[in-house]
Amino acid sequence: MIPSRFNGLYQTYLDAIEVGLKQVVNRANAFGSTRLYDILAYHMGWKVRGKGSESRGKRIRPLLLLLSCSAAGGEWSRALPGATAVELVHNFSLIHDDIEDHSPLRHGRKTVWKKWGIPQAINAGDAMFSLAHLEAIRLAQTVEVTIGLKAVEIMQNTCFHLTQGQYLDLSYESRHDVTVDDYWPMVEGKTAALISASTQLGALAAFCDDQLSEIYRQFGRLIGLAFQIQDDLLGIWGNIALTGKSIHSDLVTGKITLPVLYGLSRSDEFADRWKRNQIHLDDVPELTRLLELSGAREFAAMQVTRLLDEALATLNQAKPVGNAADALVNLASSLVNRQY
Amino acid sequence: MIPSRFNGLYQTYLDAIEVGLKQVVNRANAFGSTRLYDILAYHMGWKVRGKGSESRGKRIRPLLLLLSCSAAGGEWSRALPGATAVELVHNFSLIHDDIEDHSPLRHGRKTVWKKWGIPQAINAGDAMFSLAHLEAIRLAQTVEVTIGLKAVEIMQNTCFHLTQGQYLDLSYESRHDVTVDDYWPMVEGKTAALISASTQLGALAAFCDDQLSEIYRQFGRLIGLAFQIQDDLLGIWGNIALTGKSIHSDLVTGKITLPVLYGLSRSDEFADRWKRNQIHLDDVPELTRLLELSGAREFAAMQVTRLLDEALATLNQAKPVGNAADALVNLASSLVNRQY
Repeated sequence: MIPSRFNGLYQTYLDAIEVGLKQVVNRANAFGSTRLYDILAYHMGWKVRGKGSESRGKRIRPLLLLLSCSAAGGEWSRALPGATAVELVHNFSLIHDDIEDHSPLRHGRKTVWKKWGIPQAINAGDAMFSLAHLEAIRLAQTVEVTIGLKAVEIMQNTCFHLTQGQYLDLSYESRHDVTVDDYWPMVEGKTAALISASTQLGALAAFCDDQLSEIYRQFGRLIGLAFQIQDDLLGIWGNIALTGKSIHSDLVTGKITLPVLYGLSRSDEFADRWKRNQIHLDDVPELTRLLELSGAREFAAMQVTRLLDEALATLNQAKPVGNAADALVNLASSLVNRQY
Repeated sequence: MIPSRFNGLYQTYLDAIEVGLKQVVNRANAFGSTRLYDILAYHMGWKVRGKGSESRGKRIRPLLLLLSCSAAGGEWSRALPGATAVELVHNFSLIHDDIEDHSPLRHGRKTVWKKWGIPQAINAGDAMFSLAHLEAIRLAQTVEVTIGLKAVEIMQNTCFHLTQGQYLDLSYESRHDVTVDDYWPMVEGKTAALISASTQLGALAAFCDDQLSEIYRQFGRLIGLAFQIQDDLLGIWGNIALTGKSIHSDLVTGKITLPVLYGLSRSDEFADRWKRNQIHLDDVPELTRLLELSGAREFAAMQVTRLLDEALATLNQAKPVGNAADALVNLASSLVNRQY
């Protein structure tokens, strides 16, 4: 995480999130199925010899959820089951996405399917999915029955939306007519859905009414879109040492990103090279140059700025309060502007 | 379904189940993701040129759920969202299991992964999973909020239990020390969990108290275990024309079943052949003979009879009422004694 004057607050939340996550995943240790637990704990980054938190995700979604709850005037500790639930959903989707995208590495370590094979990885993702929703149900106790039920419904609608985004992503791979317009429904599902659910659930756990929760949802949605485009940029122009991903993998794997779709529409030379055949590591420098020449990098960066501005203006409408309000703005900005 | 005097009743329920299922899966037609819908509808057996219901599952779980609800004195139509939910969970698990087990055929048709590839099949299973749970939440409206919340929790615990059973099944494949004792925790998760949830949810939707719902759950659990062992028997001694599966696939694929585990413990000759190397189609007649000689077929058949007797005695304790009570006994018996 980027150093800031909110680090203390973030850490308080992050510690509580990690304790919560471990309690849930520990359920996989019951019934003697110890090794199913091992798979889940490995994926969560807990069982790594000689490594610390760098093998974990950044726990962005639960952090946004708890900060939204606090900023909306709620008691963040009541929202904790929601926070662990969104992080577990995120990790369920990573386990499955890594299989679907054939990704061998995550956070510099082998992915679950690479280590245990595809069948166990599919099943471990399914287990993570159920654990996530079992956590969401607990909001009925920590907050209120009707809010718990609403949270469960939001979570499942979000998961369904995730699969719609992923469906589009996978289907675009075999198509040659995908445009910039096709980008948005894909990322609304793949990325914005879960981040918007996070900020919305935070507001709901603070007993916000539907209108106010909807503003928080919008805020999360815009942050999510900006976050994804920044991810797209880093996937092409990022630094492997910081991102922990294989360099230029997004161009080599043919991933459909905003810069690529923009480049396809603006540069015939890039489009010819992209569509001709499989892209090899040797082609990457030239393709990257053509993409930059087409204005794709600038276009994508402009979208990031626009979306972040909109997101912060939206949050303002919700009149967030206290230290958490500032911390939320700080976190959103640093996520969207991150370099890794 | 085996012809019986309850066919009219079954058909009433089955028609309502099919209407409910179609309404849910239609949600995948929203957001323009028409082809995600196509995948799900294909799997459910609705889009089959020149074929009728033989390309569908038997909808056993939702039927047991609705009959349990009626037999417990409830209004079955209120339990419908539970019925569609359990059937969708079953189908989610089939889509993923078919990938994990590398099965090319189901009901005589290509499996989803075989037709659309592994990535889309994983994702379609995930979509089915979310739709299932969105349905379960609707019980909060059709029955009552607290019962809806309880149902959602039972469903997720069941799904988690499913993954534990599947984890064991997959891990047994690479082990040579699996015994008859190891069989039970695997099938408790893989098969009994969802069938026991079905009968329990039916009772809950009839406003049964915890004690009575627990009896219905036990009944379903015993039926589930018996059902699985019968499935094991059919996988070795069944008739391909009726089951629609590749003949002897359970011996060829090395599937861990009760007859095989019994045979391994009783026949050194069978154990030698089983462990030596991959089993080919040519080896199947001799292996089947050795297995039968070991008493495995008789042992498994005895377990089926014992479990069915226990199940019916358990149901009796619940004092089921009306035509549905008799239909439930009839259905349970015919499922367990089925030849396909």
